[in-house]
Amino acid sequence: MKLNSILSVFAPDESKFFPLLEETAAICATSGALMSELFSSVKQEKIPELYKAIKAEESKGDKITGIIFKELNNTFITPFDREDISELTDVMDDAVDSMNRAAHKVVLFQPETLPESTRLLAEILQKGTAEINAAVGELSNLKKNDKAIRKHIREIKRLEEEADAVYEKGTTDLFQSDIKAVELIKLKEIIQELEKSANRINNVGKCLKTIVVKYS
Amino acid sequence: MKLNSILSVFAPDESKFFPLLEETAAICATSGALMSELFSSVKQEKIPELYKAIKAEESKGDKITGIIFKELNNTFITPFDREDISELTDVMDDAVDSMNRAAHKVVLFQPETLPESTRLLAEILQKGTAEINAAVGELSNLKKNDKAIRKHIREIKRLEEEADAVYEKGTTDLFQSDIKAVELIKLKEIIQELEKSANRINNVGKCLKTIVVKYS
Amino acid sequence: MKLNSILSVFAPDESKFFPLLEETAAICATSGALMSELFSSVKQEKIPELYKAIKAEESKGDKITGIIFKELNNTFITPFDREDISELTDVMDDAVDSMNRAAHKVVLFQPETLPESTRLLAEILQKGTAEINAAVGELSNLKKNDKAIRKHIREIKRLEEEADAVYEKGTTDLFQSDIKAVELIKLKEIIQELEKSANRINNVGKCLKTIVVKYS
Repeated sequence: MKLNSILSVFAPDESKFFPLLEETAAICATSGALMSELFSSVKQEKIPELYKAIKAEESKGDKITGIIFKELNNTFITPFDREDISELTDVMDDAVDSMNRAAHKVVLFQPETLPESTRLLAEILQKGTAEINAAVGELSNLKKNDKAIRKHIREIKRLEEEADAVYEKGTTDLFQSDIKAVELIKLKEIIQELEKSANRINNVGKCLKTIVVKYS
Repeated sequence: MKLNSILSVFAPDESKFFPLLEETAAICATSGALMSELFSSVKQEKIPELYKAIKAEESKGDKITGIIFKELNNTFITPFDREDISELTDVMDDAVDSMNRAAHKVVLFQPETLPESTRLLAEILQKGTAEINAAVGELSNLKKNDKAIRKHIREIKRLEEEADAVYEKGTTDLFQSDIKAVELIKLKEIIQELEKSANRINNVGKCLKTIVVKYS
Repeated sequence: MKLNSILSVFAPDESKFFPLLEETAAICATSGALMSELFSSVKQEKIPELYKAIKAEESKGDKITGIIFKELNNTFITPFDREDISELTDVMDDAVDSMNRAAHKVVLFQPETLPESTRLLAEILQKGTAEINAAVGELSNLKKNDKAIRKHIREIKRLEEEADAVYEKGTTDLFQSDIKAVELIKLKEIIQELEKSANRINNVGKCLKTIVVKYS
């Protein structure tokens, strides 16, 4: 960062990374909101269309990720160390991928019902990705906004703990219910992927924390 | 790459990486061909022996991967950036590992039948790994062959989309069949690992694309 | 390493990494011992309390991992290359995470019985993590102790091969038993996570091997 600071006079275009990161964070947030809608959907026939919208976000995210990595290769001065930008991009991408996979499993497996725990987990994903979006929006002014960013990071961590508790109760309930084995297989895998999504959102939080510690 | 170009006069042995990468790509292709043979095998008793052959390829691959990483540590001049060679090695290794795991699950779980979708997926793995083999074979003359390599990469991507469609139909069919739960568990996991293999072959394609974009 | 050697006169505090790595290795070993206790536990009611102890180790490990990465960012001279220390930290952390997950699944799924294969696998985890602990304890005097470290690494590899054989037999037995589908689902996933833990312990061995080859 010190070297970056010294050289920043030569760097008129380092700022292009912030809009790209913000766009990726917005894709996270839209995906999270769509997840919540999908898992609270009363009408089963709406699910494939919501999945398609999530899949479209994921594809859009892949494109922007590609642009970010290309820019990292072509730009001499970056606002944070190269590896921090690529790590942040990767972890947001991973979160979107996992949400996409969870939604896809609902479409593929067609479970008879979606238990309450899946709805609660998807709601947590919506809240967590909204926090990511807010935190990334403040990165371009990190030194001034570091307190606000830290607050978002703490909230992301709290949401992950909430997700853990919902996942635990949901899994225990599932195995104690007298549901058919085939339905159990479907729902276990969907719940596990939702929990993984919550973990990955928390990985974004951890990555943001590293950035805040390093540069604020 | 610029630094590499300037220094290339000092580098008589950078070329040793191409044979090693080619050998790894050949292991991918052999594994893919064995996968196709295993999953289209009518005689169940041939399966353990085909698995052993795949496992042997995987072990051979591990050894060459070890050599590549050792050479990367000991060689000052490399034909591509160090991280591109190590990434390409890793993603090919990951693809072979995943194919090995899918074959291993057939041996361990002994499903009563292998559905058509698994045969189709394994055929796609064979085609995809053959494309990898062809593309890697042209890396040593990248500037001249970049169009051919790009064609292989596009074909790898197309094959992955084909694999996605087969996986989707295979999974939906599986859950809608009135197969026993135990058989369902076995086949679901085998199909998922085959789809993962297809994904990892596509990761090799993505890595090759990065290299072509950077150095052609 | 050469640069490190030349500069080592300026580095009074590089030695702080050894106690941190040793602490992480001790957490591995304690987790492994607790795993063996949990899976050989005759009294089911003791399991949640043993899981809590494993979870506590995992949290402690996360904190030390955080300290190691912070120190890596703030320390100019390190006893090994930065990436070797961070890799070793990561692979030990991954091993602990996986053991924690396996134990958690026992608590969440509450299987009716734990088959012999799970007890044997957990015993192997105990032995493997004890080898890690011994090997890491000798890193601070690598040049003198390299033979002893190599012996630990070989033993870790041997244990992983033993784990593979137990996993194979355990899985085949499981699918050939006439256990209920729901119990099968639970046990399959627990056995798979135990096997993953054994793999990750072997990854620590591989990472240690890289370090021994590079610096001894």
